[in-house]
Amino acid sequence: MTTPSIPTGHTPQRPRIVIIGCGFGGLEAARALQGAAVDVTLVDKTNHHLFQPLLYQVATAGLSAPAIAAPIRHLFRRQSNVTTLLGEVTCIDVARRDVHLADGSHLPYDHLIVAAGATHSYFGRDDWAAYAPGLKTLDDAFEIRRRVLLAFEAAEKEPDPARRADWLNFVVVGAGPTGVEMAGTLAEIARHTLPGEFRHIDPASAKIILLEGGARVLQAMPEALSQRAKEQLEKLGVDVRLNARVTAIDAQGLRVESASPAQPSNPNSYQINSKCIVWAAGVAASPLGRHLAEATGATTDRAGRVVVAPDLALPGHPEISVIGDLAAAKSHRPGHEPTPVPGVSPGAKQMGRATAANILRRLAGQPTQPFRYRDYGNLATIGRNSAVVDLTSPAGPVRFSGYFAWLFWLFAHVYFLIGFRNRLVVLLDWAWAYWSFARYARVVTGIEGGPHQPPAPSSAKPPG
Amino acid sequence: MTTPSIPTGHTPQRPRIVIIGCGFGGLEAARALQGAAVDVTLVDKTNHHLFQPLLYQVATAGLSAPAIAAPIRHLFRRQSNVTTLLGEVTCIDVARRDVHLADGSHLPYDHLIVAAGATHSYFGRDDWAAYAPGLKTLDDAFEIRRRVLLAFEAAEKEPDPARRADWLNFVVVGAGPTGVEMAGTLAEIARHTLPGEFRHIDPASAKIILLEGGARVLQAMPEALSQRAKEQLEKLGVDVRLNARVTAIDAQGLRVESASPAQPSNPNSYQINSKCIVWAAGVAASPLGRHLAEATGATTDRAGRVVVAPDLALPGHPEISVIGDLAAAKSHRPGHEPTPVPGVSPGAKQMGRATAANILRRLAGQPTQPFRYRDYGNLATIGRNSAVVDLTSPAGPVRFSGYFAWLFWLFAHVYFLIGFRNRLVVLLDWAWAYWSFARYARVVTGIEGGPHQPPAPSSAKPPG
Repeated sequence: MTTPSIPTGHTPQRPRIVIIGCGFGGLEAARALQGAAVDVTLVDKTNHHLFQPLLYQVATAGLSAPAIAAPIRHLFRRQSNVTTLLGEVTCIDVARRDVHLADGSHLPYDHLIVAAGATHSYFGRDDWAAYAPGLKTLDDAFEIRRRVLLAFEAAEKEPDPARRADWLNFVVVGAGPTGVEMAGTLAEIARHTLPGEFRHIDPASAKIILLEGGARVLQAMPEALSQRAKEQLEKLGVDVRLNARVTAIDAQGLRVESASPAQPSNPNSYQINSKCIVWAAGVAASPLGRHLAEATGATTDRAGRVVVAPDLALPGHPEISVIGDLAAAKSHRPGHEPTPVPGVSPGAKQMGRATAANILRRLAGQPTQPFRYRDYGNLATIGRNSAVVDLTSPAGPVRFSGYFAWLFWLFAHVYFLIGFRNRLVVLLDWAWAYWSFARYARVVTGIEGGPHQPPAPSSAKPPG
Repeated sequence: MTTPSIPTGHTPQRPRIVIIGCGFGGLEAARALQGAAVDVTLVDKTNHHLFQPLLYQVATAGLSAPAIAAPIRHLFRRQSNVTTLLGEVTCIDVARRDVHLADGSHLPYDHLIVAAGATHSYFGRDDWAAYAPGLKTLDDAFEIRRRVLLAFEAAEKEPDPARRADWLNFVVVGAGPTGVEMAGTLAEIARHTLPGEFRHIDPASAKIILLEGGARVLQAMPEALSQRAKEQLEKLGVDVRLNARVTAIDAQGLRVESASPAQPSNPNSYQINSKCIVWAAGVAASPLGRHLAEATGATTDRAGRVVVAPDLALPGHPEISVIGDLAAAKSHRPGHEPTPVPGVSPGAKQMGRATAANILRRLAGQPTQPFRYRDYGNLATIGRNSAVVDLTSPAGPVRFSGYFAWLFWLFAHVYFLIGFRNRLVVLLDWAWAYWSFARYARVVTGIEGGPHQPPAPSSAKPPG
């Protein structure tokens, strides 16, 4: 072995636990190991834990990045059995129990927790990524913020009315929670934030189009709440188009096939010109899932997630657990058939805690326990003053929408934000935005020659 | 003329005033034209006005970018005679009175205010820029933040003690206000913010070296305050080296020639290994200055600033004014010799207001007035609890340093921040940072393949 091994500071007698990824799952697993006689190494590609449920607010200039991102090593400064490393995992050597990093170093483990999450998927059309960025990382959020704000700037400068209208067409593909939040907030920006600031365009004339391939928005929600969400979106001025499938995306816009439920075999195909498209349609598990499956003989599902045993470990490899969005896990409720765990943050957090507990059981020579997911419900916000809430309670589901649902959503999200300071700042920002309609984080950087350069106003004009 | 003219919404009878740049000078000029029967077009390369005096706080993760950057068109939303444009000026056609933008459009003017500011200068050694970024824009600040935070991350992973020490050498070149603030804050981060968060390095062992070619720090300050500032820096743990001239910078670090005042002709030459160098040594005027001088026959000084007439217009071109860091202007106090205006924000703001007033005089057929700079004093902060203040008062100078100087500096800066919300957030951030020692904006993005990719930990190892 010639590659340098990173000094992980472990004393030889303590089991070494390596956690890949510090999303909700990895973070909770590391926290749940607090005080245990183990050495934990937490490795992540970035230096921060990201509160993804509010990422759309960074993309729409409502929050600054530091408000929803906490430095990982700061979070673990007082948990002395955790070593934080910034690094990218390139390979897991299952036989040698060793994780390889991109910088050539490696991390030997006694137990491995893989919590590498998911990224957006273009269903095999990766060429669409350049025209329709997704929203998973802070860099994605900055890129979308840049495109949205620069589209209005370009429209203000555009003398040709047809081209000007193209700049003011905003399309969101996919009406899951992220797509609904994005579309609702874009409508709010166009109708409430920007009017009065431009001299040649009326920002309120911008069209926000939400395309959904399925028959309703927020498909994880009960049908009645989907209907309410659609109504609230339309009240905000969003053009919601259901059963609308995207067949092509390029620099001019996108091609849509819209099937009416009555005639699904005879779709209507049309073009939407747009310079600002947001992709919220699909997720795929990290490539580490397939890599792991190949190395261990585990199977992956269609989305690339690794099928795990009831205790979240890999079949035949009790020393490797997979959790969060990377795992195709089931909830095991005694006396019931196992049910799939949804890809939401409470699921990842519960898997993190359950895995940590199972590792400690295994180290103590006790049998592991099957994972059971506790579903507390489902929330989604649509925009100013509107949200839908579907809570699970022993007395049956509690469902409501509108202003109180929005307040409930807001406080639930602020409550779960990491760090007291962030909570305070986010509440303050929200209160300010609520009363003033202003969005303060309208900073666009890297306008000249950045990596995510949007199509420049001049070059984006059609030839001729 | 085949290039499209941007519709600037002016009515033909109203004089068209174009302002290039929305720093302190351009912003104040546009504001001072409020209510006047003129059409103002304000063009800037970015979409935000930047409060540069606090930029070092963004670079050192103490503030988020939106806290010190306000969207320009939001600032002018209620001033209906101002049109804001995002664009880069490529050429000024003095004969046709027309400003050309990079996107091919152009802006005809009756009066032009050029407030394009300055950038950092490497004194002809532009190859140093890759190893020693300066601090003028938000992108610069993000780049420095990234290098500082990633240097500690790389040190944590580095098994070789000598290389580890190199990662923990931070060098600031130039001991003007920015250099002093950067060095003081880096020392604060190393001594107070990061300790306890790493497992293999002691961040407090980091060396912060401040190199100054001259004989004292903060040369614009009286000598006694320079001495106090140096003592306060040293108390914070900064290694201040005066009469130290940088002769080379590369990926390994820098070469320094240090002359003792006793033997200036026999300098001592030595190497400092460092992966994180901040350039705070020199500024040069925007290239637009030289372009304008060539077109009008005006002269530029050694720093590329345009020498202006007493009323801030160009000699022979009363329709063009140059203000702020781009102008080599003099203050005309009746009965005194003209004195140079210092390159500080109060100077730029006063020039902005004076120029607006002179344009209105000219439009009214009245003679313009010579510019007079009112000097209220000079502030500089060094770090936690320490600053130096030199106030000008009718009763003579008021000079103090230490904790009260720091409080004075803080409130003066928060007071001048644009926008009530920003002031509140900055105060809150400061209070939080003060009591917790934490710096919350420790977000590094674009780690993989960004434009400002710092030398990667692995590739930065010396060969062999």
